[in-house]
Amino acid sequence: MNRFSVIANAPKFTKGFVKEMRVRWALEEMNLPYEEHRYEHAKLKEGDYLEKQPFGQVPYFESEGVTMFETGAILLHLALKHGQLLPADEVKRAEALTWHFASLTSLEPAVAHCTVVNFFCRGEEWAELRKPVALENLNKRLEAVSKAIGEREYLAGDFSIADISMTTVLRDAMGSKLLVNFPNLMAYKERNEARAGFKRALESHQQLYL
Amino acid sequence: MNRFSVIANAPKFTKGFVKEMRVRWALEEMNLPYEEHRYEHAKLKEGDYLEKQPFGQVPYFESEGVTMFETGAILLHLALKHGQLLPADEVKRAEALTWHFASLTSLEPAVAHCTVVNFFCRGEEWAELRKPVALENLNKRLEAVSKAIGEREYLAGDFSIADISMTTVLRDAMGSKLLVNFPNLMAYKERNEARAGFKRALESHQQLYL
Repeated sequence: MNRFSVIANAPKFTKGFVKEMRVRWALEEMNLPYEEHRYEHAKLKEGDYLEKQPFGQVPYFESEGVTMFETGAILLHLALKHGQLLPADEVKRAEALTWHFASLTSLEPAVAHCTVVNFFCRGEEWAELRKPVALENLNKRLEAVSKAIGEREYLAGDFSIADISMTTVLRDAMGSKLLVNFPNLMAYKERNEARAGFKRALESHQQLYL
Repeated sequence: MNRFSVIANAPKFTKGFVKEMRVRWALEEMNLPYEEHRYEHAKLKEGDYLEKQPFGQVPYFESEGVTMFETGAILLHLALKHGQLLPADEVKRAEALTWHFASLTSLEPAVAHCTVVNFFCRGEEWAELRKPVALENLNKRLEAVSKAIGEREYLAGDFSIADISMTTVLRDAMGSKLLVNFPNLMAYKERNEARAGFKRALESHQQLYL
Protein backbone atom coordinates (compact mmCIF):
# COMPACT_ATOMS: atom_id res chain seq x y z
CA MET A 1 0.00 0.00 0.00
CA ASN A 2 1.17 3.55 -0.76
CA ARG A 3 1.11 5.49 2.47
CA PHE A 4 2.05 9.10 3.15
CA SER A 5 1.89 11.48 6.08
CA VAL A 6 -0.48 14.43 6.29
CA ILE A 7 -1.22 17.12 8.88
CA ALA A 8 -4.46 16.43 10.77
CA ASN A 9 -4.86 19.98 12.07
CA ALA A 10 -3.29 22.21 9.45
CA PRO A 11 -4.43 25.86 9.46
CA LYS A 12 -7.12 26.70 6.93
CA PHE A 13 -4.90 28.90 4.75
CA THR A 14 -2.85 25.83 3.80
CA LYS A 15 -5.86 24.06 2.23
CA GLY A 16 -4.90 22.90 -1.25
CA PHE A 17 -1.28 23.97 -0.88
CA VAL A 18 0.38 21.39 1.37
CA LYS A 19 3.16 19.52 -0.40
CA GLU A 20 1.51 16.12 0.12
CA MET A 21 -0.87 17.33 -2.63
CA ARG A 22 1.86 16.49 -5.15
CA VAL A 23 2.04 12.87 -4.03
CA ARG A 24 -1.73 12.54 -3.84
CA TRP A 25 -2.10 14.01 -7.32
CA ALA A 26 0.51 11.65 -8.78
CA LEU A 27 -1.16 8.62 -7.17
CA GLU A 28 -4.56 9.72 -8.47
CA GLU A 29 -3.17 10.16 -12.00
CA MET A 30 -1.62 6.69 -11.79
CA ASN A 31 -4.83 5.18 -10.40
CA LEU A 32 -2.94 3.73 -7.47
CA PRO A 33 -4.55 3.18 -4.07
CA TYR A 34 -3.21 5.06 -1.06
CA GLU A 35 -3.81 5.76 2.57
CA GLU A 36 -2.85 8.64 4.84
CA HIS A 37 -1.04 8.70 8.15
CA ARG A 38 -2.56 11.63 10.00
CA TYR A 39 -0.30 13.53 12.39
CA GLU A 40 -1.10 16.44 14.67
CA HIS A 41 1.22 19.32 13.76
CA ALA A 42 3.10 19.15 17.10
CA LYS A 43 3.99 15.48 16.49
CA LEU A 44 6.00 16.37 13.38
CA LYS A 45 8.82 17.73 15.54
CA GLU A 46 9.11 14.60 17.71
CA GLY A 47 11.74 11.90 17.43
CA ASP A 48 9.59 9.13 15.95
CA TYR A 49 8.48 11.34 13.10
CA LEU A 50 11.92 12.88 12.54
CA GLU A 51 13.30 9.42 11.89
CA LYS A 52 11.05 9.25 8.84
CA GLN A 53 11.27 12.91 7.81
CA PRO A 54 14.32 14.66 9.30
CA PHE A 55 13.01 18.19 8.62
CA GLY A 56 9.71 17.58 10.47
CA GLN A 57 7.58 18.23 7.40
CA VAL A 58 4.96 16.33 5.44
CA PRO A 59 4.96 14.09 3.58
CA TYR A 60 7.06 11.08 4.13
CA PHE A 61 6.15 8.13 1.93
CA GLU A 62 6.18 4.37 2.51
CA SER A 63 5.42 1.48 0.20
CA GLU A 64 6.62 -2.11 0.09
CA GLY A 65 9.81 -1.58 2.09
CA VAL A 66 10.55 1.80 0.51
CA THR A 67 10.68 4.74 2.96
CA MET A 68 11.39 8.16 1.58
CA PHE A 69 10.71 11.88 1.75
CA GLU A 70 11.03 14.90 -0.60
CA THR A 71 8.09 15.21 -2.95
CA GLY A 72 10.35 15.57 -6.00
CA ALA A 73 11.95 12.23 -5.17
CA ILE A 74 8.67 10.49 -4.35
CA LEU A 75 7.15 11.50 -7.69
CA LEU A 76 10.21 10.25 -9.52
CA HIS A 77 10.20 6.97 -7.58
CA LEU A 78 6.53 6.41 -8.45
CA ALA A 79 7.15 7.27 -12.11
CA LEU A 80 10.12 4.89 -12.42
CA LYS A 81 8.49 2.07 -10.48
CA HIS A 82 5.13 2.16 -12.25
CA GLY A 83 6.31 3.35 -15.68
CA GLN A 84 3.83 6.21 -15.65
CA LEU A 85 3.98 10.03 -15.89
CA LEU A 86 7.49 10.03 -17.34
CA PRO A 87 8.25 9.64 -21.07
CA ALA A 88 9.81 6.32 -22.08
CA ASP A 89 11.77 8.02 -24.86
CA GLU A 90 15.18 9.13 -23.59
CA VAL A 91 15.16 12.59 -25.16
CA LYS A 92 11.69 13.40 -23.84
CA ARG A 93 12.49 11.88 -20.47
CA ALA A 94 15.51 14.18 -20.19
CA GLU A 95 13.21 17.12 -20.97
CA ALA A 96 10.76 16.03 -18.26
CA LEU A 97 13.59 15.63 -15.73
CA THR A 98 14.85 19.09 -16.67
CA TRP A 99 11.47 20.69 -15.96
CA HIS A 100 10.84 18.62 -12.85
CA PHE A 101 14.04 20.05 -11.37
CA ALA A 102 13.56 23.51 -12.86
CA SER A 103 10.22 23.73 -11.05
CA LEU A 104 11.60 22.62 -7.72
CA THR A 105 15.11 24.11 -7.70
CA SER A 106 14.99 27.20 -9.94
CA LEU A 107 11.40 28.44 -9.61
CA GLU A 108 10.17 27.25 -6.21
CA PRO A 109 12.90 28.96 -4.12
CA ALA A 110 12.02 32.32 -5.75
CA VAL A 111 8.32 31.70 -5.03
CA ALA A 112 9.05 30.65 -1.43
CA HIS A 113 11.16 33.75 -0.81
CA CYS A 114 8.22 35.93 -1.93
CA THR A 115 5.86 34.00 0.34
CA VAL A 116 8.21 34.69 3.25
CA VAL A 117 8.45 38.44 2.61
CA ASN A 118 4.78 38.87 1.63
CA PHE A 119 3.14 36.60 4.13
CA PHE A 120 5.13 34.85 6.87
CA CYS A 121 7.30 37.90 7.69
CA ARG A 122 4.90 40.57 6.49
CA GLY A 123 5.48 43.86 8.27
CA GLU A 124 8.98 42.95 9.46
CA GLU A 125 11.47 45.64 8.51
CA TRP A 126 13.82 43.36 6.58
CA ALA A 127 10.90 41.91 4.62
CA GLU A 128 9.56 45.30 3.57
CA LEU A 129 13.06 46.34 2.45
CA ARG A 130 13.59 43.10 0.55
CA LYS A 131 10.17 42.83 -1.08
CA PRO A 132 10.87 44.75 -4.33
CA VAL A 133 13.92 42.63 -5.18
CA ALA A 134 12.19 39.39 -4.15
CA LEU A 135 9.29 40.17 -6.48
CA GLU A 136 11.61 41.29 -9.28
CA ASN A 137 13.61 38.06 -9.02
CA LEU A 138 10.47 35.95 -9.14
CA ASN A 139 9.13 37.94 -12.07
CA LYS A 140 12.35 37.28 -14.00
CA ARG A 141 12.10 33.56 -13.30
CA LEU A 142 8.44 33.45 -14.36
CA GLU A 143 9.30 35.38 -17.52
CA ALA A 144 12.04 32.88 -18.36
CA VAL A 145 9.71 29.93 -17.80
CA SER A 146 6.94 31.64 -19.76
CA LYS A 147 9.21 32.17 -22.78
CA ALA A 148 10.68 28.69 -22.58
CA ILE A 149 7.43 26.78 -22.44
CA GLY A 150 5.50 29.06 -24.81
CA GLU A 151 2.24 27.49 -25.89
CA ARG A 152 3.12 23.85 -25.34
CA GLU A 153 0.37 21.85 -23.70
CA TYR A 154 2.61 19.91 -21.31
CA LEU A 155 6.27 20.37 -20.46
CA ALA A 156 7.58 17.21 -22.13
CA GLY A 157 5.28 15.22 -24.39
CA ASP A 158 2.30 13.93 -22.44
CA PHE A 159 1.34 15.00 -18.93
CA SER A 160 4.19 13.99 -16.56
CA ILE A 161 5.49 14.44 -13.03
CA ALA A 162 7.15 17.65 -14.29
CA ASP A 163 3.67 19.10 -14.83
CA ILE A 164 2.67 18.19 -11.29
CA SER A 165 5.75 19.97 -9.94
CA MET A 166 5.37 23.01 -12.16
CA THR A 167 1.63 23.38 -11.60
CA THR A 168 1.91 23.17 -7.81
CA VAL A 169 4.72 25.75 -7.82
CA LEU A 170 2.69 28.06 -10.06
CA ARG A 171 -0.26 27.64 -7.69
CA ASP A 172 1.99 28.81 -4.86
CA ALA A 173 3.11 31.74 -7.02
CA MET A 174 -0.46 33.06 -7.20
CA GLY A 175 0.07 34.73 -3.82
CA SER A 176 2.68 37.02 -5.38
CA LYS A 177 0.08 38.40 -7.83
CA LEU A 178 2.73 38.14 -10.57
CA LEU A 179 1.39 35.11 -12.39
CA VAL A 180 -1.40 37.07 -14.07
CA ASN A 181 1.30 38.86 -16.12
CA PHE A 182 1.94 35.58 -17.95
CA PRO A 183 -1.24 34.39 -19.66
CA ASN A 184 0.38 31.23 -21.03
CA LEU A 185 1.44 30.17 -17.53
CA MET A 186 -2.04 30.93 -16.17
CA ALA A 187 -3.63 28.87 -18.95
CA TYR A 188 -1.14 26.04 -18.40
CA LYS A 189 -1.85 25.99 -14.66
CA GLU A 190 -5.63 26.06 -15.17
CA ARG A 191 -5.47 23.31 -17.79
CA ASN A 192 -3.73 21.04 -15.30
CA GLU A 193 -6.01 22.02 -12.44
CA ALA A 194 -8.95 20.99 -14.64
CA ARG A 195 -7.68 17.40 -14.85
CA ALA A 196 -9.81 14.73 -13.21
CA GLY A 197 -6.77 13.48 -11.28
CA PHE A 198 -6.12 16.91 -9.79
CA LYS A 199 -9.76 17.35 -8.81
CA ARG A 200 -9.88 13.96 -7.10
CA ALA A 201 -6.64 14.75 -5.23
CA LEU A 202 -7.93 18.15 -4.13
CA GLU A 203 -11.23 16.72 -2.95
CA SER A 204 -9.51 13.98 -0.99
CA HIS A 205 -7.00 16.47 0.53
CA GLN A 206 -9.81 18.80 1.55
CA GLN A 207 -11.35 16.12 3.77
CA LEU A 208 -8.60 17.02 6.24
CA TYR A 209 -10.14 20.46 6.72
CA LEU A 210 -13.73 19.49 7.51
CA MET B 1 29.93 13.37 -26.93
CA ASN B 2 28.87 14.81 -23.57
CA ARG B 3 29.05 18.57 -23.84
CA PHE B 4 28.24 21.22 -21.25
CA SER B 5 28.55 24.97 -20.98
CA VAL B 6 31.03 26.75 -18.73
CA ILE B 7 31.91 30.39 -18.04
CA ALA B 8 35.15 31.43 -19.74
CA ASN B 9 35.70 34.52 -17.59
CA ALA B 10 34.14 33.70 -14.22
CA PRO B 11 35.41 35.75 -11.25
CA LYS B 12 38.09 34.07 -9.17
CA PHE B 13 35.90 33.61 -6.07
CA THR B 14 33.74 31.16 -8.00
CA LYS B 15 36.65 28.74 -8.61
CA GLY B 16 35.59 25.26 -7.56
CA PHE B 17 32.02 26.32 -6.82
CA VAL B 18 30.32 26.75 -10.19
CA LYS B 19 27.45 24.32 -10.67
CA GLU B 20 29.00 22.74 -13.77
CA MET B 21 31.36 21.11 -11.26
CA ARG B 22 28.54 18.65 -10.44
CA VAL B 23 28.27 17.49 -14.04
CA ARG B 24 32.02 17.35 -14.50
CA TRP B 25 32.39 15.31 -11.31
CA ALA B 26 29.67 12.85 -12.35
CA LEU B 27 31.26 12.39 -15.79
CA GLU B 28 34.68 11.83 -14.21
CA GLU B 29 33.24 9.24 -11.79
CA MET B 30 31.57 7.48 -14.73
CA ASN B 31 34.75 7.63 -16.81
CA LEU B 32 32.86 9.27 -19.66
CA PRO B 33 34.51 11.68 -22.08
CA TYR B 34 33.29 15.27 -22.23
CA GLU B 35 33.98 18.63 -23.76
CA GLU B 36 33.16 22.16 -22.69
CA HIS B 37 31.43 24.98 -24.49
CA ARG B 38 33.07 28.12 -23.17
CA TYR B 39 30.92 31.24 -22.96
CA GLU B 40 31.85 34.74 -21.90
CA HIS B 41 29.63 35.73 -18.99
CA ALA B 42 27.80 38.43 -21.00
CA LYS B 43 26.77 35.86 -23.64
CA LEU B 44 24.74 33.90 -21.10
CA LYS B 45 22.01 36.55 -21.16
CA GLU B 46 21.67 36.54 -24.97
CA GLY B 47 18.93 34.85 -26.96
CA ASP B 48 20.96 31.98 -28.43
CA TYR B 49 22.09 30.88 -25.00
CA LEU B 50 18.71 31.43 -23.35
CA GLU B 51 17.18 28.96 -25.80
CA LYS B 52 19.37 26.29 -24.23
CA GLN B 53 19.27 27.54 -20.62
CA PRO B 54 16.29 29.89 -20.00
CA PHE B 55 17.72 31.29 -16.75
CA GLY B 56 21.02 32.33 -18.36
CA GLN B 57 23.12 30.12 -16.12
CA VAL B 58 25.65 27.33 -16.59
CA PRO B 59 25.52 24.53 -17.36
CA TYR B 60 23.32 23.33 -20.10
CA PHE B 61 24.09 19.82 -21.26
CA GLU B 62 23.94 18.14 -24.68
CA SER B 63 24.56 14.57 -25.73
CA GLU B 64 23.24 12.44 -28.60
CA GLY B 65 20.11 14.50 -29.23
CA VAL B 66 19.45 15.18 -25.56
CA THR B 67 19.48 18.85 -24.56
CA MET B 68 18.86 19.72 -20.95
CA PHE B 69 19.68 21.97 -18.01
CA GLU B 70 19.43 21.80 -14.19
CA THR B 71 22.32 19.93 -12.64
CA GLY B 72 20.01 17.72 -10.56
CA ALA B 73 18.31 16.54 -13.74
CA ILE B 74 21.56 16.12 -15.69
CA LEU B 75 23.04 13.89 -12.97
CA LEU B 76 19.91 11.79 -12.90
CA HIS B 77 19.85 11.49 -16.69
CA LEU B 78 23.47 10.33 -16.73
CA ALA B 79 22.82 7.84 -13.90
CA LEU B 80 19.76 6.34 -15.61
CA LYS B 81 21.34 6.27 -19.07
CA HIS B 82 24.65 4.74 -18.05
CA GLY B 83 23.46 2.66 -15.09
CA GLN B 84 26.02 4.22 -12.81
CA LEU B 85 26.02 6.21 -9.55
CA LEU B 86 22.48 5.16 -8.64
CA PRO B 87 21.65 1.90 -6.80
CA ALA B 88 19.96 -0.78 -8.92
CA ASP B 89 18.01 -2.00 -5.88
CA GLU B 90 14.66 -0.22 -5.65
CA VAL B 91 14.77 0.50 -1.90
CA LYS B 92 18.30 1.90 -2.07
CA ARG B 93 17.49 3.82 -5.24
CA ALA B 94 14.56 5.50 -3.45
CA GLU B 95 16.93 6.46 -0.64
CA ALA B 96 19.40 7.95 -3.14
CA LEU B 97 16.61 9.89 -4.87
CA THR B 98 15.47 11.17 -1.47
CA TRP B 99 18.90 12.55 -0.64
CA HIS B 100 19.52 13.88 -4.12
CA PHE B 101 16.39 16.02 -3.74
CA ALA B 102 16.96 16.78 -0.05
CA SER B 103 20.34 18.26 -0.98
CA LEU B 104 18.99 20.41 -3.78
CA THR B 105 15.54 21.40 -2.51
CA SER B 106 15.73 21.33 1.31
CA LEU B 107 19.36 22.19 2.07
CA GLU B 108 20.61 24.24 -0.87
CA PRO B 109 17.98 27.03 -0.62
CA ALA B 110 18.94 27.60 3.04
CA VAL B 111 22.62 27.70 2.05
CA ALA B 112 21.92 30.05 -0.86
CA HIS B 113 19.95 32.44 1.36
CA CYS B 114 22.94 32.66 3.74
CA THR B 115 25.26 33.32 0.81
CA VAL B 116 22.99 36.19 -0.25
CA VAL B 117 22.87 37.83 3.19
CA ASN B 118 26.55 37.13 4.04
CA PHE B 119 28.15 37.82 0.72
CA PHE B 120 26.16 39.13 -2.25
CA CYS B 121 24.11 41.62 -0.19
CA ARG B 122 26.58 42.08 2.64
CA GLY B 123 26.11 45.46 4.32
CA GLU B 124 22.62 46.02 2.94
CA GLU B 125 20.21 46.89 5.73
CA TRP B 126 17.75 44.08 5.02
CA ALA B 127 20.58 41.54 4.91
CA GLU B 128 22.03 42.58 8.25
CA LEU B 129 18.56 42.38 9.82
CA ARG B 130 17.88 38.98 8.28
CA LYS B 131 21.24 37.39 8.92
CA PRO B 132 20.56 35.85 12.38
CA VAL B 133 17.42 34.04 11.18
CA ALA B 134 19.04 32.97 7.90
CA LEU B 135 21.93 31.41 9.83
CA GLU B 136 19.60 29.82 12.39
CA ASN B 137 17.50 28.27 9.64
CA LEU B 138 20.56 26.85 7.93
CA ASN B 139 21.91 25.55 11.21
CA LYS B 140 18.63 23.69 11.83
CA ARG B 141 18.77 22.11 8.38
CA LEU B 142 22.39 21.06 8.85
CA GLU B 143 21.55 19.62 12.25
CA ALA B 144 18.71 17.58 10.74
CA VAL B 145 20.95 16.28 7.96
CA SER B 146 23.75 15.54 10.43
CA LYS B 147 21.43 13.47 12.64
CA ALA B 148 19.85 11.69 9.70
CA ILE B 149 23.02 10.60 7.98
CA GLY B 150 24.97 9.86 11.19
CA GLU B 151 28.17 7.98 10.46
CA ARG B 152 27.18 6.38 7.19
CA GLU B 153 29.89 6.48 4.56
CA TYR B 154 27.64 7.40 1.64
CA LEU B 155 24.00 8.49 1.59
CA ALA B 156 22.55 5.37 0.00
CA GLY B 157 24.74 2.29 -0.38
CA ASP B 158 27.72 3.04 -2.61
CA PHE B 159 28.77 6.49 -3.78
CA SER B 160 25.94 7.95 -5.90
CA ILE B 161 24.71 11.15 -7.54
CA ALA B 162 23.14 12.01 -4.16
CA ASP B 163 26.65 12.27 -2.71
CA ILE B 164 27.69 14.62 -5.52
CA SER B 165 24.71 16.86 -4.77
CA MET B 166 25.15 16.78 -1.01
CA THR B 167 28.91 17.31 -1.11
CA THR B 168 28.68 20.30 -3.45
CA VAL B 169 25.96 21.88 -1.28
CA LEU B 170 28.05 21.29 1.86
CA ARG B 171 31.02 22.89 0.10
CA ASP B 172 28.85 25.96 -0.53
CA ALA B 173 27.79 25.91 3.13
CA MET B 174 31.42 26.39 4.26
CA GLY B 175 30.99 30.14 3.70
CA SER B 176 28.43 30.27 6.50
CA LYS B 177 31.05 28.95 9.00
CA LEU B 178 28.34 26.65 10.40
CA LEU B 179 29.53 23.38 8.94
CA VAL B 180 32.37 23.02 11.46
CA ASN B 181 29.68 22.46 14.14
CA PHE B 182 28.90 19.10 12.52
CA PRO B 183 32.01 16.91 12.48
CA ASN B 184 30.25 14.03 10.71
CA LEU B 185 29.24 16.33 7.84
CA MET B 186 32.75 17.76 7.62
CA ALA B 187 34.21 14.24 7.51
CA TYR B 188 31.64 13.16 4.91
CA LYS B 189 32.43 16.18 2.72
CA GLU B 190 36.19 15.67 3.00
CA ARG B 191 35.89 11.94 2.26
CA ASN B 192 34.12 12.74 -1.00
CA GLU B 193 36.48 15.58 -1.89
CA ALA B 194 39.33 13.07 -1.53
CA ARG B 195 37.93 10.88 -4.32
CA ALA B 196 40.00 10.63 -7.49
CA GLY B 197 36.94 11.62 -9.55
CA PHE B 198 36.45 14.82 -7.59
CA LYS B 199 40.13 15.73 -7.85
CA ARG B 200 40.15 15.19 -11.61
CA ALA B 201 36.99 17.29 -11.97
CA LEU B 202 38.39 20.10 -9.85
CA GLU B 203 41.66 20.13 -11.75
CA SER B 204 39.90 20.23 -15.09
CA HIS B 205 37.50 22.97 -13.87
CA GLN B 206 40.41 25.05 -12.61
CA GLN B 207 41.87 25.26 -16.10
CA LEU B 208 39.22 27.91 -16.72
CA TYR B 209 40.90 30.23 -14.22
CA LEU B 210 44.46 30.17 -15.53
